[in-house]
Amino acid sequence: MENLKIVEGEGGDLDALMRTIGRRARKAARVLALASPDQKNHALRAAALVIRRRAPELLEANAQDMASARAKNLGPALLDRLLLDEKRIASMAQSLDDIADLPDPVGRLLERFERPNGLKIDRVATPLGVVGVIFESRPNVTADAGALCLKAGNAAILRAGSESFHSSRLIHACLVEGLREAGLPDDAIALIPTRDRAAVGAMLTGLDGAIDVIVPRGGKSLVARVQSEARVPVFAHLEGIVHIYVDAEADLAKAEKILLNAKMRRTGVCGAAETLLVDRAGADRLLAPLVGLLLDAGCEVRGDEAARQVDGRVKPASEEDWSTEYLDAIISVKLVGGVQGAIDHIETYGSHHTDCIVTENAAKAEQFLREVDSAIVIHNASTQFADGGEFGFGAEIGIATGRMHARGPVGVAQLTSFKYVVHGEGQTRA
Amino acid sequence: MENLKIVEGEGGDLDALMRTIGRRARKAARVLALASPDQKNHALRAAALVIRRRAPELLEANAQDMASARAKNLGPALLDRLLLDEKRIASMAQSLDDIADLPDPVGRLLERFERPNGLKIDRVATPLGVVGVIFESRPNVTADAGALCLKAGNAAILRAGSESFHSSRLIHACLVEGLREAGLPDDAIALIPTRDRAAVGAMLTGLDGAIDVIVPRGGKSLVARVQSEARVPVFAHLEGIVHIYVDAEADLAKAEKILLNAKMRRTGVCGAAETLLVDRAGADRLLAPLVGLLLDAGCEVRGDEAARQVDGRVKPASEEDWSTEYLDAIISVKLVGGVQGAIDHIETYGSHHTDCIVTENAAKAEQFLREVDSAIVIHNASTQFADGGEFGFGAEIGIATGRMHARGPVGVAQLTSFKYVVHGEGQTRA
Repeated sequence: MENLKIVEGEGGDLDALMRTIGRRARKAARVLALASPDQKNHALRAAALVIRRRAPELLEANAQDMASARAKNLGPALLDRLLLDEKRIASMAQSLDDIADLPDPVGRLLERFERPNGLKIDRVATPLGVVGVIFESRPNVTADAGALCLKAGNAAILRAGSESFHSSRLIHACLVEGLREAGLPDDAIALIPTRDRAAVGAMLTGLDGAIDVIVPRGGKSLVARVQSEARVPVFAHLEGIVHIYVDAEADLAKAEKILLNAKMRRTGVCGAAETLLVDRAGADRLLAPLVGLLLDAGCEVRGDEAARQVDGRVKPASEEDWSTEYLDAIISVKLVGGVQGAIDHIETYGSHHTDCIVTENAAKAEQFLREVDSAIVIHNASTQFADGGEFGFGAEIGIATGRMHARGPVGVAQLTSFKYVVHGEGQTRA
Repeated sequence: MENLKIVEGEGGDLDALMRTIGRRARKAARVLALASPDQKNHALRAAALVIRRRAPELLEANAQDMASARAKNLGPALLDRLLLDEKRIASMAQSLDDIADLPDPVGRLLERFERPNGLKIDRVATPLGVVGVIFESRPNVTADAGALCLKAGNAAILRAGSESFHSSRLIHACLVEGLREAGLPDDAIALIPTRDRAAVGAMLTGLDGAIDVIVPRGGKSLVARVQSEARVPVFAHLEGIVHIYVDAEADLAKAEKILLNAKMRRTGVCGAAETLLVDRAGADRLLAPLVGLLLDAGCEVRGDEAARQVDGRVKPASEEDWSTEYLDAIISVKLVGGVQGAIDHIETYGSHHTDCIVTENAAKAEQFLREVDSAIVIHNASTQFADGGEFGFGAEIGIATGRMHARGPVGVAQLTSFKYVVHGEGQTRA
């Protein structure tokens, strides 16, 4: 990127700059697609070493970002996301090594079949091409997203939030050092070198076909903008309105353990439960202990009439509550008419992310798992397992709720496409 | 669709009409997603029977379309595509039975893994949702596309070309009879009941999120418009610039057989070869017989300098020829520097559809198959195998050259998405 000058707020040059970045990424993608696993892993491990070596500089760059953010009176949650300390830098470097250790997703044999005429057809994983990643304040996404794309043989175009400008630039410089050591092109991981917000709009157009898919990483307003404006496919979820349905035939102890974990382990993650649905037929046995458990754990409970009757601490739920992702220690609670009632509620108010049934009745579980149209459906386990690491994918670039290409946790395997390789012996078509 | 009045050219009502169709299709998609294989197959077989029974009416409706087309002086190729005769009607009905006979693609177990904590995770095929199909003159696409979508548990919104208006409406009515017999909603297969061209534009917006993917079936200008305007994913290929590379280590007899079939079996299909690349190192042995073979078979040959020297009948190729899909008995011929030269040419001028290497050298074949970035890459067989039927998919709705979701022939399996089904025993996340 040597000759891409940093332009701030100069709309006129931005278009040309963005197009250049797109063209270069497309060219680099071709090189990456043919790079060996060793070469990609070499780049990742080298970048990890550089990050460790340059940790003091990273702390300094981050201090600059933190100072600007404080001067702008940004909130404590954002400041926490923005902060790099020695532990976070070490963990960022470790992520790169972990991604290098994953099996290479390119060239995997996905399917093999033979035709009656003797043609042997293999379906083989190939890289997707160029992945655009638009993220907000967490500077470590620069390393994570760049590394996941590289592992899958894709070029990455990264657009960091303006708050993390200095931190992200330095992390990016470390990645580029790694690429160079492995003999891969600098353009394999591009960072948009401007804070101009119009750069996001340019990426959403696809940069003249240079970007194959966009992954937004950030809050709901970023994801909503990307989903509504992008002219290229998007891997994302707008929100995780996650439900736990506790059936009349549930084991109460199991339900309590799962519910507490699903809601309270971490309240700010997309797999955290937002609504508890209780089978009306089991309400006498289940509702009071489940609601009490949540309240005692410090969770605000907003309930329907029935929930309010079992405990005076329950606040009334409004219609809006059923479609609210709290991302906080708040839950909505409602009685429903069995599995079918739960499915109807989830299909009405859910976000097709992750939903769970707790029951000892296998047939009811099967109905729920089959009929709830969500990326992840769970029987008798916490919804906080909705995570690429927990699925064994090693790392994830996000979770998708769309139906096209990737759905659920998006790891390196989901960042690939495929082609058909046909082996013949002179066959012609009749 | 009883109460959807046919509106022709009334832009004001069209928007509301299209939105209604979208909403109904989305609702029907939910029913179809949960329909059993038997119920879907019942609908398909019943529709086949209705088509056979109503063949005389179909011939009459088609005669109306043919008369209007002739009155508009439409060309003979279009008239041929538009025509229905008894044989074509029988084959259309047979297609429905064939699709009913295919294995059900919904609910297939795509992957199964177990985590160290005992969670069992299945990746299971689900329907995509609502598929929009925009096609031109062939009325049988109404039946084929509707049936493929139905088999995969998707609702379909079909937009037939205005030339086939009456034929398509009647075929659609037969499909709806089949749906009713199986107790499935009429809206599972909707046909846009207007000739207003603005309906296409409305479909390309996705109808407020009601359409998940668009499949254009028709000429290059339709596909180009859909690809550039669609706000939803598109399964399509713009063109098939298909190459045959004959290597210095090719078996000449095999090369001749493959080339002749790839170019001349049918010249109008997307898998027909458009460019012959010959290895410079083997030109003395290969070029004259290959060029002579094509010329003798009635194929026009447009060649580079070398090709023109071996036969006086060869016309000069212009730069434009290398990126032209003739869809006719014409081929362009060029010498290239080995496998690498062939790959470079294909990556410069190709359309990522189907490309073939003819060689007895396995290492060269592997390089070609790995490095050519096309949906289908073939070693030692005709490129006219680029077809869902030939791949064993039973039937195809088209061939895709995009990298997202579906690539190559798009059959019923490619018209599905998936979800993760997690079976636990009370596991919580640490």
